[in-house]
Amino acid sequence: MKNSVNIGIIGLGGRGASMVEVMAKMEDVNILAVCDKYQDRVDNVIKKLVGGGRPAPMGTVDYNEVLDMPGIDSVYIATDWECHVKIAIDSMKKGIPAAMEVGGAYTIDECWELVHTYEETGVWTMMMENCCYGEREMMVHNMVREGVFGDIVFCSGQYAHDLRDEVAYGEKNRHYRLRNYIARNCENYPTHELGPIAKILGINYGNRFVSMSSVCSRAAGMEDFVKQHKDLKPSLGNTKFNQTDIVKTFIKTENGELIELTLDTCLPRFYSRGFTVRGTKGLYQEDGDIVFLDKKLYRKNEWDQKKFWGRGKKFARKYNHPLWHDTTKEMLEAGHGGMDWFIIRAWIVSVKNGTLPPIDVYDAAAWMCITPLSELSIQNGGATVEIPDFTNGKYKNRTPRNDNIYDI
Amino acid sequence: MKNSVNIGIIGLGGRGASMVEVMAKMEDVNILAVCDKYQDRVDNVIKKLVGGGRPAPMGTVDYNEVLDMPGIDSVYIATDWECHVKIAIDSMKKGIPAAMEVGGAYTIDECWELVHTYEETGVWTMMMENCCYGEREMMVHNMVREGVFGDIVFCSGQYAHDLRDEVAYGEKNRHYRLRNYIARNCENYPTHELGPIAKILGINYGNRFVSMSSVCSRAAGMEDFVKQHKDLKPSLGNTKFNQTDIVKTFIKTENGELIELTLDTCLPRFYSRGFTVRGTKGLYQEDGDIVFLDKKLYRKNEWDQKKFWGRGKKFARKYNHPLWHDTTKEMLEAGHGGMDWFIIRAWIVSVKNGTLPPIDVYDAAAWMCITPLSELSIQNGGATVEIPDFTNGKYKNRTPRNDNIYDI
Repeated sequence: MKNSVNIGIIGLGGRGASMVEVMAKMEDVNILAVCDKYQDRVDNVIKKLVGGGRPAPMGTVDYNEVLDMPGIDSVYIATDWECHVKIAIDSMKKGIPAAMEVGGAYTIDECWELVHTYEETGVWTMMMENCCYGEREMMVHNMVREGVFGDIVFCSGQYAHDLRDEVAYGEKNRHYRLRNYIARNCENYPTHELGPIAKILGINYGNRFVSMSSVCSRAAGMEDFVKQHKDLKPSLGNTKFNQTDIVKTFIKTENGELIELTLDTCLPRFYSRGFTVRGTKGLYQEDGDIVFLDKKLYRKNEWDQKKFWGRGKKFARKYNHPLWHDTTKEMLEAGHGGMDWFIIRAWIVSVKNGTLPPIDVYDAAAWMCITPLSELSIQNGGATVEIPDFTNGKYKNRTPRNDNIYDI
Repeated sequence: MKNSVNIGIIGLGGRGASMVEVMAKMEDVNILAVCDKYQDRVDNVIKKLVGGGRPAPMGTVDYNEVLDMPGIDSVYIATDWECHVKIAIDSMKKGIPAAMEVGGAYTIDECWELVHTYEETGVWTMMMENCCYGEREMMVHNMVREGVFGDIVFCSGQYAHDLRDEVAYGEKNRHYRLRNYIARNCENYPTHELGPIAKILGINYGNRFVSMSSVCSRAAGMEDFVKQHKDLKPSLGNTKFNQTDIVKTFIKTENGELIELTLDTCLPRFYSRGFTVRGTKGLYQEDGDIVFLDKKLYRKNEWDQKKFWGRGKKFARKYNHPLWHDTTKEMLEAGHGGMDWFIIRAWIVSVKNGTLPPIDVYDAAAWMCITPLSELSIQNGGATVEIPDFTNGKYKNRTPRNDNIYDI
């Protein structure tokens, strides 16, 4: 076991730069290198690290220099979506375990390549799906394990986040979402909701995704937003956005559960992952933070949903994951209410201990492939498409890892 | 204009019997006949009416006797789903306008027959979709009309109601749901959520449903419920229920909106119609009773949905439908929080005034046809199916009626 790990960070946009700050707070993490294709981002991050009393890391605009740097134990990849898999593959090939930020894939082929590279090199990539460490997601997973909800029949979730500003000002902010929203129409960001659901349903561990279909609304939100903002007119006044406002995806699992995913990023709304789990004995629903159990006490108020708003909180003491029983201010402030701290720790602990990560290439491939498959389904009028089994049958006998507290 | 109307009531199960009580409170309604295929139900309703000081109506087990009774102005049909359309057609053919309770159709053919009979006889049938008169549904319709939510892109709704008890004890209670849940797998009850949405989107009034598809979960809830109740074992211990626990249906409209329907009746849960309207300027969402508008004041709290719970109530004063500004205790206690009173008044006023009803055969056909089409889609693995235009092109030039306050 290592006492500390030497890491490189590739991609210093919004996500990368904020995660550097979290990692810089961890005493067992040495940031040896930082990289972005824009030099000014590199300079800014180095300045911030040095200003905070950290040693200056090597800075570069070429990620290969990070992978070739002596002593690097692992890299964290937070580039644009298009480069995630390519860099993870290059990293594994050089013997360096990678932590890859979330996003959808572009082709089924790159999902297979991710898997094959792991199988050929024996070096892992972990997908950094922070929502797998969300407080409610972990609590509900616990409740499912203990049978509180009975047999699980249906799960749903969404990435419901008003991103009009981020997308529209993508040129100014050098953000990859803009070009993706212009060119594609798909479930472009499935993993925040699908990751926790896949873990709950044992996907790749005795269960698997079998088939799926997607339908979409029209694209009205972005165009309306551009019209409202005069400064966007020169660059986007005549732009047609292919990405529709609402994309719905249905996945069927081998064990018979139905999963509903929603991408909802171009209309005004509050943020919600809409995390919902339905079983024969009860439910959890994020909208309203509702727990409802098949008991007289609940049924007598079934007509007044207000009575159940906020009830999720009451179950936290009994069912929260141990990680969420001992949170510190530092963890909670790390980002996204604490999830970011835990996902980084999960990765760092895997590197230190030399164990396999809790979210592996099979998970990444199964979750990321939803994006190109949703594109295909929509192009074919909502047709049902098969989902590959990236484990090649191994899912039947795999059991979830149980090396440390971060295994989920 | 008539001062009072003479009505007959056909179907005296749970719904019919409770609606008789509401109608009996209306001074301009004379209940001339009551009918059910079970004599004891007929006897009980007559006894109750007489006990309440009303004249004894004619009682019969043959609905033709009601249709043939001299002086009948209209009939209200609350039989099992299977007989709704048949009796409405017989009624129209005898020159008697009918009020038909809600439910899905069994075939596309019966939807056409409903429409053709109206067109041939000139006698109307009104569909008694009470949820079109729900407080929030009417408020949101008003807000949509006034542009509060901008261009509407997506609407969703559900019939989410734990009916396990009603279904499982269907033999004892002589309830038609039992046989339907054993034999069919479909969106069997689409209109509570689809009716209000169709009115908001102007379906049959410049807009129409174009195509749809349905997917479903497995069927686990009913079997689990039967196992839990020993008294059900003799009759249902070996029964396989075809009806799945969750059925999702997507409808595309000619104007480009996407509609999502959910049937959710076999798992423990609180009641919710999940009524949701999404536009380029804001949203209403029943779960949490949330209004969210595209304004700074809202956006600054976008990460904390709790701040918006119950906000719908704050918009009631400004946007409630006039009907909901002057409710009396009697109306609110009439059933389902007041909706039942309004839908009955809408029907009675149409009969008294000799005007066409606010929910006509074209609406009924468009909403009810979702049931057989969902069956077809599910049988074909979620395939997209076309939805007929029951107006034969007339929808392009139809405008919503505006005869009285009940027109929606």
